[in-house]
Amino acid sequence: MASKSPTIVDIHTHIYPPKYVELLKSRTTVPYIRQLPGQTVPHLIILPQETIGRPIGDEFSSIARKVEFMDKHNISISVLSLANPWLDFLPASEAEAAAKEINDDIDAMCKLYPGRLYCLGTLPVSAGAKACVREVKRLRELQQIRGIVMGTTAMGRGLDDEAMEQVWGAIQEEGWTVFLHPHYGLPGGVYGERAGEYGHVLPLALGFPMETTIAIARMFLSGVFDKFPKLQLLLAHSGGTLPFLAGRLESCILHDKQLKEAGKLHQGRRTVWEILKTNVLLDAVIYSSVGLRAAVEAGGVDRLLFGTDHPFFPPVGEKAEEEKWLSVTLNSKAVADLFGEDQEKSQAVLGRNAMRWLKLD
Amino acid sequence: MASKSPTIVDIHTHIYPPKYVELLKSRTTVPYIRQLPGQTVPHLIILPQETIGRPIGDEFSSIARKVEFMDKHNISISVLSLANPWLDFLPASEAEAAAKEINDDIDAMCKLYPGRLYCLGTLPVSAGAKACVREVKRLRELQQIRGIVMGTTAMGRGLDDEAMEQVWGAIQEEGWTVFLHPHYGLPGGVYGERAGEYGHVLPLALGFPMETTIAIARMFLSGVFDKFPKLQLLLAHSGGTLPFLAGRLESCILHDKQLKEAGKLHQGRRTVWEILKTNVLLDAVIYSSVGLRAAVEAGGVDRLLFGTDHPFFPPVGEKAEEEKWLSVTLNSKAVADLFGEDQEKSQAVLGRNAMRWLKLD
Repeated sequence: MASKSPTIVDIHTHIYPPKYVELLKSRTTVPYIRQLPGQTVPHLIILPQETIGRPIGDEFSSIARKVEFMDKHNISISVLSLANPWLDFLPASEAEAAAKEINDDIDAMCKLYPGRLYCLGTLPVSAGAKACVREVKRLRELQQIRGIVMGTTAMGRGLDDEAMEQVWGAIQEEGWTVFLHPHYGLPGGVYGERAGEYGHVLPLALGFPMETTIAIARMFLSGVFDKFPKLQLLLAHSGGTLPFLAGRLESCILHDKQLKEAGKLHQGRRTVWEILKTNVLLDAVIYSSVGLRAAVEAGGVDRLLFGTDHPFFPPVGEKAEEEKWLSVTLNSKAVADLFGEDQEKSQAVLGRNAMRWLKLD
Repeated sequence: MASKSPTIVDIHTHIYPPKYVELLKSRTTVPYIRQLPGQTVPHLIILPQETIGRPIGDEFSSIARKVEFMDKHNISISVLSLANPWLDFLPASEAEAAAKEINDDIDAMCKLYPGRLYCLGTLPVSAGAKACVREVKRLRELQQIRGIVMGTTAMGRGLDDEAMEQVWGAIQEEGWTVFLHPHYGLPGGVYGERAGEYGHVLPLALGFPMETTIAIARMFLSGVFDKFPKLQLLLAHSGGTLPFLAGRLESCILHDKQLKEAGKLHQGRRTVWEILKTNVLLDAVIYSSVGLRAAVEAGGVDRLLFGTDHPFFPPVGEKAEEEKWLSVTLNSKAVADLFGEDQEKSQAVLGRNAMRWLKLD
């Protein structure tokens, strides 16, 4: 007897709506899209270290192509987020209007496929806290919105910026989950003189996860989760490196003389392990059962949510068009390898957790 | 019936021999040791971002204090390494003589406690490849030496520097294990404007492991392990973040168009998973069973070696003098939590692996 296939929800899947693509095409500094002579498709340059960038076909902006991808990979529901770098680069005067327009746009795109598409809103971070708070509240009017996607710089000074507190307050009040996603990586110099030989590997494989880890550690150390104990941060790439480094982070805190003298090591303080189990959700975009198990052990199986990172990481092989994407199957296989026959757990990670946390009807 | 207590070997334990301390005291730029008015002990400043530094008592340089620490924590054998930043900062003209002097010094210190102390040699990296090769060979004359400790910058351009190849060649020929240890962390700006409030936490907890991860990834990507397939690199802090990020690193490689076009994704290429199981050893300095399990799954239980990081991370509590060090017990507990009653595995990690890999008689 064939069992009913499980509901698969993809909570890490990006789109650049057509209006955002137009915006990127109008620019000449990173981020931007350019069409070079001899290229058949335009190229997107989003990382400061990039020179060539990546081909950006309509899989980056077409909602029909997104659904095609979902069907090919048996994904029932996708929760779309604007891809990095979101609206971070906009002048303050343009950001709020752009955020409204793009959030309305994505929301409308999701409505084209009832029951299959939800989305995350984007905040006009460069316009400051008040504008962000207004958009945090306005997002309630949009039916398909289920949270907010955010980069690590927030309003320019990181997620531990005191000016962010009113934004965290509004987000907590509205109950939005925040999907925290890297973009800036690490300063290019850290990869050495031969980095150019290694393609995009080092900034994407190592810089991105470290950026996320630093960002969440700064939030934790500055006390954001003490002030806003109901916040839920969904961390991209299984928390960057947080599950693996949580022990070292906690140990470095417990051995820090300055924190001790500042009274920060008091009895009853919340540890990074507690934050992982109460304020953090992790996506399952980690490409191996080794990392996935660490994520489960750190956060709990009910806090792990499947994702694909589509349309990034397309296959590079000759039969790319026909194949299922390796970047997807590596993550599905990690879930299967980790949970084996335990349908309860694998279905939780593949879809049920997302349904519950993000209130997908 | 009480079982015989297992042989515990500490392979991550540092010392600044008296001659090295004199050297640091003579300097006025990082790294250096200074005695400020009102301070009872001198302070060591080793990280670029530090202002106050850390108190450096004789536990940093006294071999008797090292053995006292070992006895207190039931450590049978220690494999001492010169602490960071080793000899990296020396002018080329002074480095080779200093390396000889300090290697002879540590070797002699180890002989004071027969059967309990071994050590790693330090190379005169600033003096160039030939000087390093000479010292790699000369170390054979020193009875207690069991490997080499090295930072991530090597001769100034990292471990993927082509000029390092003759050094790797000599190391492979002599069969030395290289203990790869971080020091430089990440550029200070990545921790944001409030980093000063967080003590040393972010550079130590996150910067150090990422530095190690980038260094080993660069070695891997540049093909060092293809050219020198017998190299054994012992990675500090359980590989930095390598076990957790191995899946992502491998996926980013498999999805990199530039590497594909350069023919680097050919059939039969060695993956990062294979390197972890053939060229990499991991210490068990990770402070939690979550990280430790990932290290075991990535590298294999026979490639994981217990360590303490002494004399760094002393207790900060009021009863610090009496206590066993938390930084040690967190790591012992991680081993106990992970292996439970499985004495075979826990004894392998606590000592037997080190005995075998480092040929401790």
